[in-house]
Amino acid sequence: MIYFCGPLSYNMKQSTIKRFVEHPFTQRFIIFLIILNSILIGLETSPVYMEHFGFYIDQIDKIILFIFVAEIFLKLYAYGWRFFGSAWNLFDSAVILVSVIPSIGASFTVLRALRILRTLRLLNNIPKLKIIIESLLHAIPSIGWIAVLLTIIFYIFAVIGNNLFATAHPEYFGSLTGSLFTLFQIMTLESWSSGIARPIIGEMPFASIYFVIFILIATYTTLNIFIAIVVNTMNELHRAGLNEEEEHIKKFVHSEHERLNNQIADMKSELSEIKELLKQQTAKP
Amino acid sequence: MIYFCGPLSYNMKQSTIKRFVEHPFTQRFIIFLIILNSILIGLETSPVYMEHFGFYIDQIDKIILFIFVAEIFLKLYAYGWRFFGSAWNLFDSAVILVSVIPSIGASFTVLRALRILRTLRLLNNIPKLKIIIESLLHAIPSIGWIAVLLTIIFYIFAVIGNNLFATAHPEYFGSLTGSLFTLFQIMTLESWSSGIARPIIGEMPFASIYFVIFILIATYTTLNIFIAIVVNTMNELHRAGLNEEEEHIKKFVHSEHERLNNQIADMKSELSEIKELLKQQTAKP
Amino acid sequence: MIYFCGPLSYNMKQSTIKRFVEHPFTQRFIIFLIILNSILIGLETSPVYMEHFGFYIDQIDKIILFIFVAEIFLKLYAYGWRFFGSAWNLFDSAVILVSVIPSIGASFTVLRALRILRTLRLLNNIPKLKIIIESLLHAIPSIGWIAVLLTIIFYIFAVIGNNLFATAHPEYFGSLTGSLFTLFQIMTLESWSSGIARPIIGEMPFASIYFVIFILIATYTTLNIFIAIVVNTMNELHRAGLNEEEEHIKKFVHSEHERLNNQIADMKSELSEIKELLKQQTAKP
Amino acid sequence: MIYFCGPLSYNMKQSTIKRFVEHPFTQRFIIFLIILNSILIGLETSPVYMEHFGFYIDQIDKIILFIFVAEIFLKLYAYGWRFFGSAWNLFDSAVILVSVIPSIGASFTVLRALRILRTLRLLNNIPKLKIIIESLLHAIPSIGWIAVLLTIIFYIFAVIGNNLFATAHPEYFGSLTGSLFTLFQIMTLESWSSGIARPIIGEMPFASIYFVIFILIATYTTLNIFIAIVVNTMNELHRAGLNEEEEHIKKFVHSEHERLNNQIADMKSELSEIKELLKQQTAKP
Repeated sequence: MIYFCGPLSYNMKQSTIKRFVEHPFTQRFIIFLIILNSILIGLETSPVYMEHFGFYIDQIDKIILFIFVAEIFLKLYAYGWRFFGSAWNLFDSAVILVSVIPSIGASFTVLRALRILRTLRLLNNIPKLKIIIESLLHAIPSIGWIAVLLTIIFYIFAVIGNNLFATAHPEYFGSLTGSLFTLFQIMTLESWSSGIARPIIGEMPFASIYFVIFILIATYTTLNIFIAIVVNTMNELHRAGLNEEEEHIKKFVHSEHERLNNQIADMKSELSEIKELLKQQTAKP
Repeated sequence: MIYFCGPLSYNMKQSTIKRFVEHPFTQRFIIFLIILNSILIGLETSPVYMEHFGFYIDQIDKIILFIFVAEIFLKLYAYGWRFFGSAWNLFDSAVILVSVIPSIGASFTVLRALRILRTLRLLNNIPKLKIIIESLLHAIPSIGWIAVLLTIIFYIFAVIGNNLFATAHPEYFGSLTGSLFTLFQIMTLESWSSGIARPIIGEMPFASIYFVIFILIATYTTLNIFIAIVVNTMNELHRAGLNEEEEHIKKFVHSEHERLNNQIADMKSELSEIKELLKQQTAKP
Repeated sequence: MIYFCGPLSYNMKQSTIKRFVEHPFTQRFIIFLIILNSILIGLETSPVYMEHFGFYIDQIDKIILFIFVAEIFLKLYAYGWRFFGSAWNLFDSAVILVSVIPSIGASFTVLRALRILRTLRLLNNIPKLKIIIESLLHAIPSIGWIAVLLTIIFYIFAVIGNNLFATAHPEYFGSLTGSLFTLFQIMTLESWSSGIARPIIGEMPFASIYFVIFILIATYTTLNIFIAIVVNTMNELHRAGLNEEEEHIKKFVHSEHERLNNQIADMKSELSEIKELLKQQTAKP
Repeated sequence: MIYFCGPLSYNMKQSTIKRFVEHPFTQRFIIFLIILNSILIGLETSPVYMEHFGFYIDQIDKIILFIFVAEIFLKLYAYGWRFFGSAWNLFDSAVILVSVIPSIGASFTVLRALRILRTLRLLNNIPKLKIIIESLLHAIPSIGWIAVLLTIIFYIFAVIGNNLFATAHPEYFGSLTGSLFTLFQIMTLESWSSGIARPIIGEMPFASIYFVIFILIATYTTLNIFIAIVVNTMNELHRAGLNEEEEHIKKFVHSEHERLNNQIADMKSELSEIKELLKQQTAKP
């Protein structure tokens, strides 16, 4: 680390850099740069703008990329290896890395297109979006095994579809991957009948069973992915609400009982006094 | 205000106007006029009706518009500047203003079409609809940041789509706005495969990844907008229900304890009596 | 009533008829006849069957219809005017009435098709289905005003669509009813873009705003109809659950307190005894 | 059983076999074989692979099938008739039986395609998937009667559609089964208007009523299937949560009351002592 960021380490302490990188102003400036950069990459899609301002857009793009790379190195210096402990930092670095490639090397269209992925840095840098992304990812484990089930269903129907319809309709069921794409289209219900099923059924009437069963199973399973998410989220909130209520009731009952307890304690001291009096009397003469 | 409504202020008090404007009869009459006006504007779409009754429809339309404008001015006079404090009043005025323009000036078709927006005044004037509109708007903040996320996703895919497919399919991805519209169509799953994806995949096989990933991300995110609304609404009702139950249980426990308390109080007075008796006894001989 | 069912009233009591009509066997027989009749009407759609068994099917159909009509008259006699107090009975009579018409008069295809509506009698005669229908209808009032809102939205967009696009695309927006049907199609998202929006946008680019806004508003409102039903149903069940729990806790707390109360009562009697003893002692010497 | 597995019974006990069959290693090996087999059947769809490795794939397939059949027989021997008591075992056997047929006899494409059904054995052998399948099936009874209702609706609309539109559009409503398939397509909203409804409405304008009413009823009913599942699942979890909370509160209240009870017991013994003292005193002189 020290060799890497050598020149900087002479005049700045790690903590100063850290304070600088985490300063609200720096963070807002980075957000501003991400948005500016996204807009500029958007403008590049317009030939008219590129003709007139292409040179300036390119220059600003390079400057912004330089600042992004510098930010990464500053963070690396400030946090050391802990930097790689956060999935968000890795995501950030990967996004910048991917968009450095087209800037350096040849300008292949496909690679240039990936530069827009820098916009994804917003997800990391705006806390509200970070929370939403994390809540969206949080729901995924609960649907993991339904997704495995859906994969199995797709695979089985793809193999059957390929076996039965490949000869007659190679454009839909010609290969296994082609069949999987066709089944995905059928699951979204797009042109499943007018485009795919009816021409096939015209030749093989029994094929309608294949399509109807696949749609029923696929939509029912997808529906259950949705239900799993709703029910999970509701249940968590529900349990939290119940626990809170339970605490309130317990606290209330306890405080009420304290009152009763105090009364009983009073009575007990009264009783002790009475016993004392009685004992004195008995002992007296 | 006074100069503006000058002639009226000589013979009527603000409060009288206010009472008149807020009278149930006036309000029902306004609702009747809005519905009548909506029906007449609907009839104007039929050439047969326009030929026979066009003149009368036009006249009634002008009279109703005059009454609507008069209503606004009466309200302005009655409430003064507070009139502009309500978003609903501003909405009402804007709707009437928009529909005054075509009545005065040239009869451009586009502007004439806007006159039907007067029907929107029903939303303000029928309390039940007002409640529903407010509850629909109430749910929007909870989906605000997911909408921002969706915008980012759309923007990224629009730029990538434009970069990759603009040359081959300018009708779908020719410009950034065109790409955004195409992505909106794909999100609604309309002809996404048969119309858009398959022709493109025919030339660039890897494009299927672009479409499948976009559909998975876009539908999953949209789904979560929906889930957010359901869960929020349910959670509010749920908390209300729990709080109510908590209150009931607390009240019940408290009243039960009062009974115990009374018993204990009885015992305490008994104890005092006993102590008193004992003390007398001790003091006696 | 008596004149109407005169001949019957000589040899049978109302209560006997009622017992006969409500007998499980009669009801199962009616269900059997409805299903048989439905199957026969289904068979009539096949020319092959009609050629061979057409005559028998027609005869059985007439017999079953006669039994259905007889059943109505028996019920009328048994229940008197109270018969018309139940919406289900009116529904039943209407369904039979509608299917009597084609049997008597000319055999218009349209009217003959209505005979299949007799199958709807199953909804009334199978209790489980009756419950489901009633629960489906039960949810409707909660969505009533959202439906009114949706009607207003449809009406406004139909008038605007007719004004703007009638000249260029009369097949979609030629008349007000045509526009309403097109908007219904757009709401179901069927071919909204490839079939309707894109050709129009090709001529008037700003039209895309019209379609996107309509889809956003219409689907969001429809979504809320759905949410309203889920939330209402859940809330009812939820409240029931909470009330039950509340009762259980109250009962438990009360029984526990009874135990405490008994203990306290014991103590009180002890105290009385003690007081008595003390009083005797004081009075003694 | 003994005759059937005769040779095995000489050197192995039932319990040894059972232990072997239920051993985690055996089960993981079976899962591995199912996945391997599924991949091989998938590879068979590629002519390139079949040309080069066709022979080996076929051989491995036969070996795996032999192991599967052997596993069934071992289980039959280990569990005896109880083997047939589990629906999962019957499912397993049926799946293997179906895929034995094409391996033995002629290689009809349709039958060969069924071999991929072996992949379904994963549902039985991976516990997590078993749980998901069981929870998916668990929800079905709650939607049973809505499914009956949907069948009735489909049947009625199919007969009416066949009666009205068979002559003009035999491709959609030519037969009863054809009409049912068309209605299923309309329920999924695929090309319902552009493909089916508009051409028919062009000839019979009133037909739009038929389609709109069917879509409203069918989607509303389907929606309620979905709602039934969500509400049922939520309600079960909800009741469980409430019961748990109820138990917690009861336990807490009880333990609190025990504390009060102990106090009261103390007081009681004090009172007895006092009474004793008093009695002694009274008896003394």
